[in-house]
Amino acid sequence: MKDARPQALLVMDPAKFGVQFQEPQLRRLRGLVELAEPILTDELDSAHVRSRLREVEVLVTSWGCPQLTTERLAAAPRLRAIFHCAGTVRTFVTDEVWRRGILVTNAADENAIPVAEFTLAAIVFAGKKAPFLAQDARKHRDDWSYSTRRGELSNRGRTIGVVGFSRTGRRVVERLRTLDVDVLVADPYADPAEVAAVGGRLVSLPELLPRCDVLTLHVPALPSTRHLIGAPELALLRDGTTVINTARGAVLDTAALERECATGRLDAMLDVTDPEPLPADSLLYDLPNVMITPHIAGSLGSETRRMSESALDELERYLSGQPPRAAVTADEFVVSA
Amino acid sequence: MKDARPQALLVMDPAKFGVQFQEPQLRRLRGLVELAEPILTDELDSAHVRSRLREVEVLVTSWGCPQLTTERLAAAPRLRAIFHCAGTVRTFVTDEVWRRGILVTNAADENAIPVAEFTLAAIVFAGKKAPFLAQDARKHRDDWSYSTRRGELSNRGRTIGVVGFSRTGRRVVERLRTLDVDVLVADPYADPAEVAAVGGRLVSLPELLPRCDVLTLHVPALPSTRHLIGAPELALLRDGTTVINTARGAVLDTAALERECATGRLDAMLDVTDPEPLPADSLLYDLPNVMITPHIAGSLGSETRRMSESALDELERYLSGQPPRAAVTADEFVVSA
Repeated sequence: MKDARPQALLVMDPAKFGVQFQEPQLRRLRGLVELAEPILTDELDSAHVRSRLREVEVLVTSWGCPQLTTERLAAAPRLRAIFHCAGTVRTFVTDEVWRRGILVTNAADENAIPVAEFTLAAIVFAGKKAPFLAQDARKHRDDWSYSTRRGELSNRGRTIGVVGFSRTGRRVVERLRTLDVDVLVADPYADPAEVAAVGGRLVSLPELLPRCDVLTLHVPALPSTRHLIGAPELALLRDGTTVINTARGAVLDTAALERECATGRLDAMLDVTDPEPLPADSLLYDLPNVMITPHIAGSLGSETRRMSESALDELERYLSGQPPRAAVTADEFVVSA
Repeated sequence: MKDARPQALLVMDPAKFGVQFQEPQLRRLRGLVELAEPILTDELDSAHVRSRLREVEVLVTSWGCPQLTTERLAAAPRLRAIFHCAGTVRTFVTDEVWRRGILVTNAADENAIPVAEFTLAAIVFAGKKAPFLAQDARKHRDDWSYSTRRGELSNRGRTIGVVGFSRTGRRVVERLRTLDVDVLVADPYADPAEVAAVGGRLVSLPELLPRCDVLTLHVPALPSTRHLIGAPELALLRDGTTVINTARGAVLDTAALERECATGRLDAMLDVTDPEPLPADSLLYDLPNVMITPHIAGSLGSETRRMSESALDELERYLSGQPPRAAVTADEFVVSA
């Protein structure tokens, strides 16, 4: 008797596969679909992969999936659904995928979790100027008078400016409810009632900038968001504001930020930069009021398995005829990450 | 007609008064009690303060209140209640206060809020090794290969060891529910059901130590807790564990921790140290896997007004004959901060 389970292929960087599909995730996948050799690939052009591709109804993808060009898709006539175990599918989904009516789901919601956790931690540390005082401690050592020179070290009653009511932005606003702070949100696509429902207040960007103590960015990297926060926007921030970027480097004008941080007027916590990494001679590495981390806020290690499991949830729903929870549509490409 | 409101005196460091009693707090206090000159003092021995002390029923105290010795209390025959606008009253309350049956309340619950906020941020940053990677970035700059040398950079599924189910410890456990982590708690005085109710599991300290990825201390500084975490306890921690101390420096053996951090086996985030500050030649200032902040996790700036407001709430309850919410008792002195 023929196996009723659909044929599937894993398409991702093998190193990511090793982290995202450990024994429990792989066992669960094998229970849902049929995996024939090769079960895993990061290319779609070799003869043996092409031969496998002809049979598959389902792709389970992650970082490292090659672009699904018209030619490659022509080699996969039975393909009906793509379950992506990471955030954006922008790197490999093409218009031909939509034209063929293939279901695409992503794990962007799950990817937003660690970023929101990290951002909340960064906001609390910014309120206390902790990363910068820690740097001062290395220099001033037992002379603690420096701690009085970084303004008020408190989180109560602060105003947090959230730019982008995206998946991550919304989660940051929700988590900010655990603090006694005022939350302003700027996003041209957001609904004021939805922002209010999670504890924020929707305002325009020019209204937000001069009022916040901490500015945190949660917008996707799109042509329209490049340098969304540039020199004129930074100039609107009050002295002592901390700029947090856990989104994408290009949404912030790096040179303009460097100038503002070099004078000590603004502080920054950057998990993403533009370019990434910053060149070795960048002044930002040396400033005591700038904390740089190497793009670690997003899903890493065990956090990436949260995304595999959510992709497996979607696959399970697909197989039992239930509607997907995180389908990506062609329209979303315009405004989303 | 005589003012029916009780006479009160503010006893605290004038600098703290300026931060803790701004116009709204002072207006509210004046609505509840009668304040005659001097309304504020940080000493209780001068003739004009003694003369005022004779009339007062209520002291509103904060950091800088002198010890309430038998002799000083003898000068305040009408004193019935002390509302402390900060955490511990150990620095100024004496046995004579209890012998005289004076009501004492503190704002330790409110003081635990910023410490718990800061500790949660520290735990998330520890999971991502963020403070240490930021230090690496200053040195290695655009060479990002260093980021793979600090182990898994993830918060999901981590085990957090909380030592001390104190006001702060309990709040940290509660806030850890916002993360996908396992929480172990060690505290000889805690009730397993109470720990379980907020999402933790009560175990012994020797059981906790070898199992956690992050160890966070929330025990008061008492003779019995001095070096509670010493060389033998640190030796039980797994390689790569991050030790967080936002409690008191003396609960951790600084020299033993320094040895473990110097080899790179353990990492540390220290907001309190022993001594405080550490001597200028301490190696801990220089280690890339140690983050030192100058005792800033607790209430500062606007956070201290949260404590004034809670003391005013207690005063209001006292005046209307309601029971206090945060009365300190002589018995608590044995086990509490």
